[in-house]
Amino acid sequence: MSGLVESAIYRSVLALVEKDREQANLVLQNESRINQIEIEIDDQATRLLALDQPVATDLRLITAIIKINSNLERMGDLAVNIVERALSLMHEPMLNSVVDISHMANLVESMVGKVLDSFVHKDSEQARSVLLSDDAIDETRDSIYRKLVSYMQHDPRSVPQGIDLIFVARSLERVADHATNIAEDVVFLVEGVDVRHHAEVRK
Amino acid sequence: MSGLVESAIYRSVLALVEKDREQANLVLQNESRINQIEIEIDDQATRLLALDQPVATDLRLITAIIKINSNLERMGDLAVNIVERALSLMHEPMLNSVVDISHMANLVESMVGKVLDSFVHKDSEQARSVLLSDDAIDETRDSIYRKLVSYMQHDPRSVPQGIDLIFVARSLERVADHATNIAEDVVFLVEGVDVRHHAEVRK
Repeated sequence: MSGLVESAIYRSVLALVEKDREQANLVLQNESRINQIEIEIDDQATRLLALDQPVATDLRLITAIIKINSNLERMGDLAVNIVERALSLMHEPMLNSVVDISHMANLVESMVGKVLDSFVHKDSEQARSVLLSDDAIDETRDSIYRKLVSYMQHDPRSVPQGIDLIFVARSLERVADHATNIAEDVVFLVEGVDVRHHAEVRK
Repeated sequence: MSGLVESAIYRSVLALVEKDREQANLVLQNESRINQIEIEIDDQATRLLALDQPVATDLRLITAIIKINSNLERMGDLAVNIVERALSLMHEPMLNSVVDISHMANLVESMVGKVLDSFVHKDSEQARSVLLSDDAIDETRDSIYRKLVSYMQHDPRSVPQGIDLIFVARSLERVADHATNIAEDVVFLVEGVDVRHHAEVRK
């Protein structure tokens, strides 16, 4: 599931930046597999809860898996959203700000890689480091947003493309949000501390 | 939790359409309560799983509650997003398309009311009727989108406001998506049928 979702995100960005229709098609083709695996993992997890009646660490692991699974599926949906924008921009001239989109995409991909790694290795230090990446993402999104608004105002014909790219930046930001959710689940799994909505204990 | 989230959505739309700063402030003040209750419900549900080791219907109810809880919290976040856009538009002239925003908001609020009702009454018929509202939402969003793009192209000074309203429409659409997720959980809870990603069995 992680591998499919990571590669969907990577390919969706390639489809956009390189105007690569083949990568776009691969993301669309894999969407139903991701949806299928989400349901399978959910079924297995619920069955384990019912049959094995796990307690303590095992219970925490299974509830973490249920949440992470749902976050991964949403990340897959966001990759599809990016691909839809990439297809709509396939024959349009590339706006300058696409450079920033690549930069933002790299930040987000690295967050996703790190947080999935932190889950596999039960490494809450690494999960916490993902929680601290939020600010860099927000800054990059704001800079993309400002550039696109002034571009659209300067050249109104570019409004539809500008909006497409604003939505791509928004989708990337939401992928980062889901990576943050997973990081919170990993911290809870490993340390038993709930860090949702509590910035003060996230350091 | 349902009551707080329903009223947050209602107030966020009032804040936007009526330029009502007091409603906006109420939404922002209630955000932390919603987050707090999300954690409490999650804790209680996890504790029930551990201590009571429920099976069959009880297990399905508790896993449904965990998912619905998470969807409600995200709806609360979306109300906050709408309020942020409402505040940014507080001193701007109202764009014509705001009329459509009210219409879309009414559709979405009625979906949310219906689906929460269907959960309380374990009424899977009503939950299924929510699944069928998707198309109307998509049409309204497309119409808002088209009007705003042509408005921005015609009057480039309106680009920032237009983008704010596009994001409001997007947030409303996502509230509807979460209502759909909850409807799927209610159908599964009552009938034991998984209707995620399977339009053919949703009728």
